[in-house]
Amino acid sequence: MSTAGQPSAAGPAPRPRTTGPLPRAAAGDSGLRTIRLCLLGFGSVARAFCALLAQQERVLAERHGLRVLVTAAGTRQGSLLEPQGMTPAAVLAAVGERPAPPLAARPAGELLSASRADVLVELTVMEEDFAPVATGHIETAFGMGMDVVTANKGPIAWNWRRVSAAATVAGRRIRFESTVMDGLPVFSLLELTLPDCRLLGFEAVFNATTNYIIDAMGIGRSFDEALAHVQAEGYAEADPVHDIDGWDAACKAAALANVAMDAGITPADISRQSLRDVPLQRIARARSNGNRLRLVTTVWREESGRVRGRVRAKELDIDHPLAPVGSESLGAILHTDLMGDVFVCEIAGLVPQTAYGVYADLLHLCRAR
Amino acid sequence: MSTAGQPSAAGPAPRPRTTGPLPRAAAGDSGLRTIRLCLLGFGSVARAFCALLAQQERVLAERHGLRVLVTAAGTRQGSLLEPQGMTPAAVLAAVGERPAPPLAARPAGELLSASRADVLVELTVMEEDFAPVATGHIETAFGMGMDVVTANKGPIAWNWRRVSAAATVAGRRIRFESTVMDGLPVFSLLELTLPDCRLLGFEAVFNATTNYIIDAMGIGRSFDEALAHVQAEGYAEADPVHDIDGWDAACKAAALANVAMDAGITPADISRQSLRDVPLQRIARARSNGNRLRLVTTVWREESGRVRGRVRAKELDIDHPLAPVGSESLGAILHTDLMGDVFVCEIAGLVPQTAYGVYADLLHLCRAR
Repeated sequence: MSTAGQPSAAGPAPRPRTTGPLPRAAAGDSGLRTIRLCLLGFGSVARAFCALLAQQERVLAERHGLRVLVTAAGTRQGSLLEPQGMTPAAVLAAVGERPAPPLAARPAGELLSASRADVLVELTVMEEDFAPVATGHIETAFGMGMDVVTANKGPIAWNWRRVSAAATVAGRRIRFESTVMDGLPVFSLLELTLPDCRLLGFEAVFNATTNYIIDAMGIGRSFDEALAHVQAEGYAEADPVHDIDGWDAACKAAALANVAMDAGITPADISRQSLRDVPLQRIARARSNGNRLRLVTTVWREESGRVRGRVRAKELDIDHPLAPVGSESLGAILHTDLMGDVFVCEIAGLVPQTAYGVYADLLHLCRAR
Repeated sequence: MSTAGQPSAAGPAPRPRTTGPLPRAAAGDSGLRTIRLCLLGFGSVARAFCALLAQQERVLAERHGLRVLVTAAGTRQGSLLEPQGMTPAAVLAAVGERPAPPLAARPAGELLSASRADVLVELTVMEEDFAPVATGHIETAFGMGMDVVTANKGPIAWNWRRVSAAATVAGRRIRFESTVMDGLPVFSLLELTLPDCRLLGFEAVFNATTNYIIDAMGIGRSFDEALAHVQAEGYAEADPVHDIDGWDAACKAAALANVAMDAGITPADISRQSLRDVPLQRIARARSNGNRLRLVTTVWREESGRVRGRVRAKELDIDHPLAPVGSESLGAILHTDLMGDVFVCEIAGLVPQTAYGVYADLLHLCRAR
C-alpha cells in the first residue's frame, strides 16, 4: 500500500487519444491487454484498490499480460473522466486529499457511457433498502457490455435474481467477493476450490463492529463507551444502526444464501436481534463462564426447500470455532454435502483486505473475458 | 457414501475392447470424455474415493462431460487390471471386503504400463523416509504421459523439487490437496482464490490424533489410555509414532512450504517436539487457565530467505483461532502479503473429506487436460 498517492514513475506513457469506439481490451503496442475501469464510489476502498493496482502494476503486466487503466471515476460529489485512460496512480494523484474526484459530478449513466470501460467497479456505500441506485448502476453497465465487480452488498442481498438475470441477458459477468467477508474468499472458495459441493447452510460471525463492542463490554465498558470507541477508530459507520441492529449481518447472510443456495431471499427475511437488546450481564456471564458471546448468523434450508436465517446473540463454548472471532475478525462455518464443515476466517480484516477482494475479482473477470 | 460396494445399475455398459493404444480421454459414443484411472493403494481413502465417484456418476457426466473408469488398481497384496475400464462401483464390488484387489500382486510399473491410464491416483501410505516408492510411482506415471493425483504427502514433503521437475520435463501435472488438511482447500485456496498473494508463513494445527490425546489428557486420562482410545477409534496408525513425535505435522509443514513458499526443505529440517515430552500437568494447567494446549506447527522465512519451521506444544489463549482446533479438526493460519491472515479449518475431517480432496483434484486436472 506504500505507493498510495504516488504516481508510479514506471507507469506507461499515455496512449494517443483515438477517435471512434475504443477497441475493448485490445492488446496495445506493448503487447499488454488493456482493461479500462469505471469506478463508481471513491471512498477508502476505492482508494486502497487504486493503490493496490499501482503497487501491482508490474505483476499485472508480467504475470497476467494486463494493463489496467481508469477511464472514469465518480461519486455524488465529483468525477474524473479520461476515456484514453489514466493509471490508477495518476487517479490517486488527481484526487489527492479531496473527498471526491475533482471535476463536477455527473449522472452515473452519463459517466458510464462516456467511460467506454470494460469493467464497472461499483464501490458505492450500501443504501438503506433495496439498493436501487447501485442495482441501477450494475444494470446500466451490463447494458453497455461491461462486466462488474462490486463490494456493495446491497444489489446481491436485495436484488440478486434481478441482477443475475440482467447479467445472463447481457452475456456479462459480475463478481462480489468483498461483499460478505471483506475480501476473504468465500464465493470463490465455493466456486473454485469445492467443485460439486452444495452449500447446505452456514453459521457465521459477519460483523466486526458488534464483536468489538461485545468484547469491550465483556471487560467492563458500557455499550455507549464501546460504541464511541469503535466509531472513533473508524470501524463503525457514523450511524452504526446497520451493525448494531444486525442489518449488516442479515445483508451478508442474504447475499451468500442467494448466490450459493439459490435462496431468493432479502435481508428482510432474516430475523434479527439487536445488540442493544443483549444485556451487559449476559456478555459478562459468558466471559466468566470461560465462553464468548457472539452475534451469530445462522442460515439453513427447511425440509420444504425454503431457506431461513436468523441473527442472534449466542453464548459460544470456548471449543466452538466462532468463539475466538472477535474485534476485527469475521468467520463462517460452511456446511457442505461432500466436504463436511469448512471454516474460513479473516483474522484482521480492514480496508486493504476489501480492496484485495476487488482486485482478485477483477483478475477472475479478466481471465474469463 | 451410501453406494459403496453396490454396483450402480445406471453404470455405462462396458465398452468393446479395442486393440492398439487406447485413445487418451477420447469422447466415447455417449459424447462423454472418458478418463481412465490407475489406483495405487487400496485402503480406506481409495475405497471412499471409488464410492464418491460412483455416487457422483451423473454429476460427472452431466456437469463435467466426464466418464471416469478405473483400468487398474494395485497394492503390494493384490491387483485388478481391466484396460477397457471398470466403473468405480464395479471395482468396489470386485474387491468387496478383501484387504486388497483380488488378482495376484504385480509390480507397480507393470500395472501402470498395462493400465494405459490418463491419471495415476497415488493413495499408498507414506513410507518412513524420503518416500522412494511413491515418488517412483509418480515419476513412472509422468514418463508414461499420465497426470497424477496423490494423497500421499511423502513425495511432496521429501521430494518436491524432484517431483515438480519430473512433471515439467514430462509436461504433466500433479495435484495433492489431501496431503496436508484431509482435502480441505489449502493448495487450491492459495492457487485459485488468492491470486498474486505470496504465502509468507503459516501457523497450524496439523495433526488430529495429538489434538485428541491432548484433550483427553486435559480431562484426566493418561497418555496411554488416550492413545489406546484413539487407536481403537481408528484415528491413529497402529504405530502412532508419526503422529505423537510430530513427524506427521513436519511432513505437512514441509509439503506446504515446498509448494507454496518454494522452501526446498524436507521434514527433517523442521524441528519437532514429541507429545511424549509434554507433561500432563502442562496440559491440565492450560485447561485450568481457560486456555488450550496444542501441538502448533510454525513456518516462517528468515531474512536470509531460508524457510524455517518447528512443531511445538504451545498454550493458546482462548481468543487464538487455533485454540478450538481439537480432536477431529485441523486448522492453518496462512500469513499472506496482500490479504493478511487467512484462517482455514476443517471441523471434522475423516476419510470422506480426504477422498473428496482427491475427487476435487481429479476435476481440476480434467479441466486442465
